[in-house]
Amino acid sequence: MSSAAERKSAKALRRAKPAGKPRKRTRDGLKIRVEFGASGFIGPGKIALLELIATHGSIRSAGKEMGMSYRRAWMLVDETNGIFKAPVVEKQMGGQGGGGARLSPLGEEVVRRFRSIETAAAAAAEPDMHGLRLLLAKGR
Amino acid sequence: MSSAAERKSAKALRRAKPAGKPRKRTRDGLKIRVEFGASGFIGPGKIALLELIATHGSIRSAGKEMGMSYRRAWMLVDETNGIFKAPVVEKQMGGQGGGGARLSPLGEEVVRRFRSIETAAAAAAEPDMHGLRLLLAKGR
Repeated sequence: MSSAAERKSAKALRRAKPAGKPRKRTRDGLKIRVEFGASGFIGPGKIALLELIATHGSIRSAGKEMGMSYRRAWMLVDETNGIFKAPVVEKQMGGQGGGGARLSPLGEEVVRRFRSIETAAAAAAEPDMHGLRLLLAKGR
Repeated sequence: MSSAAERKSAKALRRAKPAGKPRKRTRDGLKIRVEFGASGFIGPGKIALLELIATHGSIRSAGKEMGMSYRRAWMLVDETNGIFKAPVVEKQMGGQGGGGARLSPLGEEVVRRFRSIETAAAAAAEPDMHGLRLLLAKGR
């Protein structure tokens, strides 16, 4: 579990990126996708969207922050809902604006386990990542 | 290091797929890409291509087995060569047909470390993968 301060910091980081601008592909480290055969997959994009839905309580706002249309965000949620035995995102009745969206307990577990996989995989890969970095061309 | 029998078996598996046909996206488990910031990345496609170059001694034959044009295979090799401080694939002088291609020692290390990362990451992820599989919809 991350602390409130960590969550706030992560949120600030995400907010620091201009909305509507695609992320630059200059990440460093492992990029992981979890594939479930014919059922589909979850990856960094879907998981980030779910986290933003949890933050904003809205699929539209979450999608907007990732620079995607409401339609695209909704389709990714629908696709992810279809993978699991219950929806990962559920409609929230009442509240401001007459309702929004939130993660179901199952959705929260999916996000938590995906982030846990990323962390565990990165730690397990570190010796070989170090070895690979020693082989990189200089001056990039 | 894999045994000769394991290598032969892996080769037979690859050969069992009809050449020129794209792989079906029904894998199960982690799919990993290793990103090196602005330098680029290595993933399952580039690594499989390098392994096939080692097997066939030819970029053209390796690409053909993966259903890609010589130009596409050559570009992927060139892109991968550019990431590291020395080429991963080098021209082989002489031999049948007047030369082919083979992995450099650095190329062999890149392939070995990538496959090692996949294995270590999958093992580290197993508890959460098990948890996620329990959440999947039935009957897919």
